Amino acid sequence: MKRIHTKEVASCVGEKVLVAGFVQVTRNQGKIGFIILRDISGEIQVVVIKQELISILTTITNESVVEIVGIVKEDKQAPNGVEIEMESIEILSHAEPELPIPIIIKTGEETELPKRLDWRFVDLRKPENTLIFKVWTFMEQAFREYWTSNEYIEIHSPKLMSSPSESGAELFEVKYFDRVAYLAQSPQFYKQMGMASGFEKVFEVGPVFRANPSFTSRHDTEFTGYDCEISYVKSHHDVMEEEAKALQFMLSKVSEKYVTEIEKFFDRKVVVPTLPFPKVTMKEAKEILKNLEVPSTEDGDLSPEEERALSKYILDTQGHEFVFVTDYPAYVRAFYHMRHDDDDTLTKSFDLLWNGIEITTGAQREHRYEKLCKQVKEKGLHLEPIQNYLNFFRYGCPPHGGFGLSPTRLLMKLLNVQNVREVTYVYRGPKRLDP
Amino acid sequence: MKRIHTKEVASCVGEKVLVAGFVQVTRNQGKIGFIILRDISGEIQVVVIKQELISILTTITNESVVEIVGIVKEDKQAPNGVEIEMESIEILSHAEPELPIPIIIKTGEETELPKRLDWRFVDLRKPENTLIFKVWTFMEQAFREYWTSNEYIEIHSPKLMSSPSESGAELFEVKYFDRVAYLAQSPQFYKQMGMASGFEKVFEVGPVFRANPSFTSRHDTEFTGYDCEISYVKSHHDVMEEEAKALQFMLSKVSEKYVTEIEKFFDRKVVVPTLPFPKVTMKEAKEILKNLEVPSTEDGDLSPEEERALSKYILDTQGHEFVFVTDYPAYVRAFYHMRHDDDDTLTKSFDLLWNGIEITTGAQREHRYEKLCKQVKEKGLHLEPIQNYLNFFRYGCPPHGGFGLSPTRLLMKLLNVQNVREVTYVYRGPKRLDP
Repeated sequence: MKRIHTKEVASCVGEKVLVAGFVQVTRNQGKIGFIILRDISGEIQVVVIKQELISILTTITNESVVEIVGIVKEDKQAPNGVEIEMESIEILSHAEPELPIPIIIKTGEETELPKRLDWRFVDLRKPENTLIFKVWTFMEQAFREYWTSNEYIEIHSPKLMSSPSESGAELFEVKYFDRVAYLAQSPQFYKQMGMASGFEKVFEVGPVFRANPSFTSRHDTEFTGYDCEISYVKSHHDVMEEEAKALQFMLSKVSEKYVTEIEKFFDRKVVVPTLPFPKVTMKEAKEILKNLEVPSTEDGDLSPEEERALSKYILDTQGHEFVFVTDYPAYVRAFYHMRHDDDDTLTKSFDLLWNGIEITTGAQREHRYEKLCKQVKEKGLHLEPIQNYLNFFRYGCPPHGGFGLSPTRLLMKLLNVQNVREVTYVYRGPKRLDP
Repeated sequence: MKRIHTKEVASCVGEKVLVAGFVQVTRNQGKIGFIILRDISGEIQVVVIKQELISILTTITNESVVEIVGIVKEDKQAPNGVEIEMESIEILSHAEPELPIPIIIKTGEETELPKRLDWRFVDLRKPENTLIFKVWTFMEQAFREYWTSNEYIEIHSPKLMSSPSESGAELFEVKYFDRVAYLAQSPQFYKQMGMASGFEKVFEVGPVFRANPSFTSRHDTEFTGYDCEISYVKSHHDVMEEEAKALQFMLSKVSEKYVTEIEKFFDRKVVVPTLPFPKVTMKEAKEILKNLEVPSTEDGDLSPEEERALSKYILDTQGHEFVFVTDYPAYVRAFYHMRHDDDDTLTKSFDLLWNGIEITTGAQREHRYEKLCKQVKEKGLHLEPIQNYLNFFRYGCPPHGGFGLSPTRLLMKLLNVQNVREVTYVYRGPKRLDP
């Protein structure tokens, strides 16, 4: 007999079916018993009438995994209008009687986050947590549909490198046979290599590593990055238009499929953004924030408080959840960001804020070898450790730009979740390497 | 003016167009000049008639990146029946005159592989190398289409672990703040965690790390892995059927789109396999090989020579490029492989061979906590370092199985390429961390 999912049961009234899943709860009322069975698609009520089966009920612990055969009956009192009258049950996996953390939460009895992370596999059984990863799967597939239908080439770049890709801070060292390697902090160098290889447009989905000792709600030492790089751009504005289009495509797909479930579980109404996204230069942003009397902590960059205030201002005045902040001063950006032709102190760069949090950093890159070497030296860096990277620009390389995007930050905003740990499958922080 | 790709030029006869790409070669014949321009879609011939433009020709080095505006004309002598009569040219990126390795290869002047890997970004400009990554992109998207349309959930599991996931050999150590972490050799533990989380079916695409000092044509220290795990299987045979279906789906998609190009560049005719795939038990395999007089080097496992001979035998006798080898003895398999009910020395495991090379290892997993602990101890391993993993099986876990698949080995067989380095974007080996 072929297993069906609990969501399919309602369309099988009168039929004998086989379902399997976790025993969420059992009730034994003497002459009648009940099981609520949970699978990936939802829950179903199973009614137990035969006495020999009711006596089995008392031996089944919550969260045991069972296979049940029975007849589907209509029942107006059952949660979804149908129930299964059990004919037989097989216990596939017996759960220990005391769960380490509860799955059904009574108000006031919420488990602390660190304990939930210790028992992540139990915590993920909650339907709202399972939904996060269904949405992630769908979101990623939507992005990929955008990229592949627009002729991007996917790359899987190495995570082991002989030299740091960026500043050298926040770097993990690996013992690599008789020498030292470093874990990639981003695929920056290798997606630019794709441009020098003539791939024209590339994307990568993969882990990035940051030896960042922070414990904030939006930092982790390992996370998934989405990265894009595209050739033949005229400026960073072409890169921003492309990112906005990809985000709009993804959000319209996700909204189509999950708008109701996201609203039900996360009380968040997904909004499909209009094009173009609002843009302000860093200079304009600082003026807006000055008028709003938000204190500025750093001249060329935005503090988390400033990000929130600017996002709120754009939402209030333009009704848009997104805003690009552009043209950061050179001294806060990486050496490879291209400068403005008419002002060498400004970069052709941008960040993207979504409802108060930065989800992207992007820029047009400097593809002219001499200029790039000059910028490396200006930043006080040495040419020699990154010569392999610099070589990409010696034998013809199209002008190009790109951006990195964080799916966990996207999910925080998409689902209105406050902590990156909640939307990460298995979180890693300075003090957390388990499970 | 909007840029078009060279493959679109043929449909624009009589129009003014803008193309951009690498200058593959220039020819100056005095009164007339030519450029062959290469972009991601192909090549186009550009003819130069105006004298002031011909004199520019002599200053343009091969592999410089240029933007050309001109009128499309029919020309029976041009490689694709059309050419562009140049009106203007802009040099976007000037290439140094001496390329480190050639792109157009004359017979007998092939560059050695290590040098080509040193200059990987130049090597990748060859159309046959670009094709490898177009095919990879498409292959991966086809697999994902299969997985997402069959309700798999995608996971991105951590690559930093507190303890080894497998035997502890071939493990890279990372300095992790004040302690040591290890790079994941596979997402094995975390995809099984997905089963304990009730996700039912998961897949992951991501890097795996092996501190393997081998220099063979099919080994590397870092490579991309495709991993699947599915719940409610009755045995490893359910896992094999599922893998065969996914492979057939992928190969029929790839064949549809790329059969001609793959045959042109790699002289390999892609075959869409029929279902079911042939299966032989390890015991049967050894008997077949004995009859073929192929020497056996190890009792419960196949040497590369045996793999090739067995594959050839199946192809000759059954006309199938694939063969599952099943039921490996317990002493050659990992502790988490489930054993046969009636023979504790045999595992419910399999490898999949494709045209003589192993591309998959899979199995049903032991999901019963006590049995699993027993198997850990039998292998001489300790429970304590993997207690977080063992916990997955204490609070209800569906029976499940899965497999890992190597996309680079798939590409080797799909394209008939002999070395994994050729199909890896940027290869990593014991002596290679650059570029």
